[in-house]
Amino acid sequence: MSRPIITLTTDYGSSDHFTAVMKGVILSINPEVEIVDLTHGVLPHDILDGALAIGQTYKYFPPKTVHVVVVDPGVGTERRPVLVAGDQHYFVGPDNGVLSSVYDQSESLHVWNIISEHYFRQPVSKTFHGRDIFAPVAAWLTKSWQPSSFGEPISDFTRFAVPRAKVTGNKIQGTVLRADHFGNLITNVTAEDLPGILASDGKLTVSVGTGQVTKMVETFAQGAAGEPVALIGSSGYLEICVNKGSAARTLGAKRGSEVSVEMKNP
Amino acid sequence: MSRPIITLTTDYGSSDHFTAVMKGVILSINPEVEIVDLTHGVLPHDILDGALAIGQTYKYFPPKTVHVVVVDPGVGTERRPVLVAGDQHYFVGPDNGVLSSVYDQSESLHVWNIISEHYFRQPVSKTFHGRDIFAPVAAWLTKSWQPSSFGEPISDFTRFAVPRAKVTGNKIQGTVLRADHFGNLITNVTAEDLPGILASDGKLTVSVGTGQVTKMVETFAQGAAGEPVALIGSSGYLEICVNKGSAARTLGAKRGSEVSVEMKNP
Amino acid sequence: MSRPIITLTTDYGSSDHFTAVMKGVILSINPEVEIVDLTHGVLPHDILDGALAIGQTYKYFPPKTVHVVVVDPGVGTERRPVLVAGDQHYFVGPDNGVLSSVYDQSESLHVWNIISEHYFRQPVSKTFHGRDIFAPVAAWLTKSWQPSSFGEPISDFTRFAVPRAKVTGNKIQGTVLRADHFGNLITNVTAEDLPGILASDGKLTVSVGTGQVTKMVETFAQGAAGEPVALIGSSGYLEICVNKGSAARTLGAKRGSEVSVEMKNP
Repeated sequence: MSRPIITLTTDYGSSDHFTAVMKGVILSINPEVEIVDLTHGVLPHDILDGALAIGQTYKYFPPKTVHVVVVDPGVGTERRPVLVAGDQHYFVGPDNGVLSSVYDQSESLHVWNIISEHYFRQPVSKTFHGRDIFAPVAAWLTKSWQPSSFGEPISDFTRFAVPRAKVTGNKIQGTVLRADHFGNLITNVTAEDLPGILASDGKLTVSVGTGQVTKMVETFAQGAAGEPVALIGSSGYLEICVNKGSAARTLGAKRGSEVSVEMKNP
Repeated sequence: MSRPIITLTTDYGSSDHFTAVMKGVILSINPEVEIVDLTHGVLPHDILDGALAIGQTYKYFPPKTVHVVVVDPGVGTERRPVLVAGDQHYFVGPDNGVLSSVYDQSESLHVWNIISEHYFRQPVSKTFHGRDIFAPVAAWLTKSWQPSSFGEPISDFTRFAVPRAKVTGNKIQGTVLRADHFGNLITNVTAEDLPGILASDGKLTVSVGTGQVTKMVETFAQGAAGEPVALIGSSGYLEICVNKGSAARTLGAKRGSEVSVEMKNP
Repeated sequence: MSRPIITLTTDYGSSDHFTAVMKGVILSINPEVEIVDLTHGVLPHDILDGALAIGQTYKYFPPKTVHVVVVDPGVGTERRPVLVAGDQHYFVGPDNGVLSSVYDQSESLHVWNIISEHYFRQPVSKTFHGRDIFAPVAAWLTKSWQPSSFGEPISDFTRFAVPRAKVTGNKIQGTVLRADHFGNLITNVTAEDLPGILASDGKLTVSVGTGQVTKMVETFAQGAAGEPVALIGSSGYLEICVNKGSAARTLGAKRGSEVSVEMKNP
């Protein structure tokens, strides 16, 4: 009996009216919807960044939440729109791989190519499918909860591998997935890649950007002011941080910077 | 029976507490209101930019939506507060022309000078009418739906002409209305100004900033990486874009830059 | 019978998914909650800036609103989580002083150290208590309204004095608390510090950054273009502003810059 929830994930930023247009379209179809901004700060045109944003966040929302994900450099081309039913959530977006992390985490997975044009806003523009396809499909879905009515099931949907760190002996080669608002560098090295060395520092050396980090901590505050430290962040990734400062600035690193970890013998 | 909707359009940005203050004031008067941020990214003090933001967006919202529009460099001076009933929506804001695009698009139009001070938050500051006049008036309106109770009808409201491109023979002189989050340059040249040349490229040359654009496309992805192209955007305006890049940066252009279009003889 | 309201105040910025994670956690516990972003633009790790943001805003919200305030450089260390019942509102956050301004304004004040871990999201990370402690506690509070069930009452909570301007004879020494989105410099000099000189200008000289300001006005528009002026802002603080411009840029001043005011003899 609760209000249906639709979240919005885009690379539209926060300065324009684009996301409000999508909200207006949704509320015009179903005024009962609760709309939540998941993020509009996906790096422009960066499908992997979008995949990570939705992949790290969707599970915190209640079952039946509909997640609209629009990072869509190919808007208006032949790439298909898709509607996805995962374990407990729905997803609507372009079939360009932006849902890859969702696919990776879903045991049950049904994907439809959206073709029922009577659910679209007409005329459909070639540059704003967020407004004309994805928002209205999500809104209509919250009225019927019949995903199969929006298109035909497909199995050849686009899916790429989220880049994983490579472990070779006592060395790990990875990459910076994102520098967050604080300048923390979130890498693709996971806790699983680092067995047994989490509890204490002095056991690994992380090279990233212009610096080397050897101090492994559990909280941001354990670093001295200005000192880069490493920790396992709240999403399970190795992060390089500076207490009350920006590791991105301190180390001159950013999205895509290489990360190498050397583990000492125990 | 749906919850009333109030949207907020301001130049307040997203880093301060000002919009939250307006939301608190609204919810204190009518906790049933659904508040939607239309945009807070209007260029500071830029009434035309505000007029375009609300003008391009309000129609996507359901009938009876109340749009609060606060771009108000003259706050606290003699400029009047107004309440407007257009074809299907209400608007509340300063009488400084920020609703000009709404007026242009409305067949039915009723404008009241807001004078019923018992609806205001007291004491009324001289610098934050968003909090003390516009937010409370919008909230009270969603309880009574009696716009005439807020003031007296006027017909001398402030209205300026949204600048239009000038067509002279096969040349068009226009301007950049806005560079969006992606760096796309939205011009005031419309599809109507460009008859018959939309379907194929090679028929026009657009000069803007440091460059000339001759490729006319339908989707962002049709441009080569780094190549500026022209298209008719989702609001009907000629836009200059760079596939996966920023036309604003590539061409050194921004809000107010001149745009000239030369059409070739067919 | 209205929906419960939870506001969020953080230094998380607007580009990441962190606040959406908190919203998902809240809606998963109580889908009836209305979530309002108070601000996510608190300066990173700046507890005083967070204290001022919540302190200037919370009273505009309806009684029983639950305000979650997360500016938390010590997350994961021994600093306690607290739940606070003030005169009419609830507050949830770290016990690091970020609620100091709330304490100053509350006649009735009850503070609990949150220790009932069954309300936490498990496992509790050491770096994201917004997700694992503060959001779930706020959400559960909106279901039970029994603050005492979350922990034990304490009286030794952390509280610092919000820095006040010093008045010595006809001189006042203060500081810039914040430069807002428009570049207005909000100082900690209050209307009470400036008795009797508000009505007219020419009676004080404000030195800040690279300049001196002698013109006292009531509205932003009373300044000439580019001219720095002083006024008492909507929160009761002395502000230095530039009509349609940025005082921060014009005067080279920012958060923490010294401000000195010299009042002339009447």
